[in-house]
Amino acid sequence: MKIYDWYNGPYPARVRIALAEKGLLPRVEFVSVNLWKGEHKQPAFLALNYSGTLPVLQLDDGTLIAECTAITQYLDVLDGTPTLSGRTPVEQGLIHMMTKRAEIELMDAVSVYFHHATPGLGPEVELYQNAEWGLRMRDKAVRGMRYFDGILKSQPYVAGDEFSMADIAVLGGMIFAALVDLPVPAECEALLAWHAKVNERASVQAWRAMVAQPR
Amino acid sequence: MKIYDWYNGPYPARVRIALAEKGLLPRVEFVSVNLWKGEHKQPAFLALNYSGTLPVLQLDDGTLIAECTAITQYLDVLDGTPTLSGRTPVEQGLIHMMTKRAEIELMDAVSVYFHHATPGLGPEVELYQNAEWGLRMRDKAVRGMRYFDGILKSQPYVAGDEFSMADIAVLGGMIFAALVDLPVPAECEALLAWHAKVNERASVQAWRAMVAQPR
Ligand SMILES: N[C@@H](CCC(=O)N[C@@H](CS)C(=O)NCC(=O)O)C(=O)O
Ligand SMILES: N[C@@H](CCC(=O)N[C@@H](CS)C(=O)NCC(=O)O)C(=O)O
Repeated sequence: MKIYDWYNGPYPARVRIALAEKGLLPRVEFVSVNLWKGEHKQPAFLALNYSGTLPVLQLDDGTLIAECTAITQYLDVLDGTPTLSGRTPVEQGLIHMMTKRAEIELMDAVSVYFHHATPGLGPEVELYQNAEWGLRMRDKAVRGMRYFDGILKSQPYVAGDEFSMADIAVLGGMIFAALVDLPVPAECEALLAWHAKVNERASVQAWRAMVAQPR
Repeated sequence: MKIYDWYNGPYPARVRIALAEKGLLPRVEFVSVNLWKGEHKQPAFLALNYSGTLPVLQLDDGTLIAECTAITQYLDVLDGTPTLSGRTPVEQGLIHMMTKRAEIELMDAVSVYFHHATPGLGPEVELYQNAEWGLRMRDKAVRGMRYFDGILKSQPYVAGDEFSMADIAVLGGMIFAALVDLPVPAECEALLAWHAKVNERASVQAWRAMVAQPR
């Protein structure tokens, strides 16, 4: 299979970490789409993903799957033993809820801040910006960090007792926040402790190694 | 189980239609949260769903599941025979992708238009509006309609050959668009034909009957 992405993008990180969790990295060929040159907004890439975002998974038969959550769902159930998206109905419901919440309240909010209230990918790519909206989303993201801190005060992982794709989504938000210099409030001790813990996972270290040495 | 929602809300419609598809309506008690009075932004409701949106599912043991996609995933796999969220890994990936795309490109865009560039739920509830962003999202939603029209020109349902939660998500977008008087471009013939077809499903008719006679 092929993954169209950009080596240090925060959404791509979600799928690369999921691939590492599932032991699937050796089966993937990465194809670079240069975000800084706006290649993701060119017709060739829009034909792969109408939404013009990375990453996209392409199966050997040509089937295209975009959206981090959808790609992770696919990768996770491929071997018949899901470890990231839940086994029971309740686990699946809670993990999908918390993954979506990580997007809405943190990761997507940081993304809108980046694209609208900072230079983003530069004037050639950011053809429209709404700074007021971007700044509001920055504040929302910081509130989101406080929310997840509260959650992690009472449970070890974002969706409960086990690591899941919801943790990967919050981690994506933290990766994006670090890229745009949006600090986690120091009093979010549970969130920071969780961050230190998940950073030690082999999958996250594999991702860091790939970023340090792009492939 | 309990569903906290508002009888004619477009996101609630997604879950009510999913419940009808799965034959689960008789097992649900609906609890009204009055959107027009802003009850979804009050502390009592925010304790059920941090994001302050409807619907929320509460299981008999108290477990709370928010987010239409997460609720639908739970409901669909409950009986061990998923019919809305996919059986194979590829089906699951494609259905999750198209459901998310229906949100990003259509339903959520209509929602932002409603809350930001129209009176929305009224001045007591809409405490901040960004009209410029709202109008941009309106235009995005209309482009989204054209995109789904293109998809439905070559396949009978949004994620392929079978009805799925991705169809319910596009339907939610159409329901929301109708509520805010955002017409489907007349040339979107495939989308309109699909709409007429899914409107005939028993589940969608059950939803319409509940809206006509709130329960
Ligand atoms: N909803 C998408 C979001 C992906 C996304 O925004 N990816 C970034 C790369 S880190 C991107 O393509 N940004 C480019 C842009 O929005 O212009 C997903 O979950 O995959
Ligand atoms: N992402 C949520 C969105 C739900 C949503 O926006 N629901 C509407 C009701 S139709 C709502 O609560 N709107 C109130 C508001 O945003 O103020 C989901 O998929 O469940």
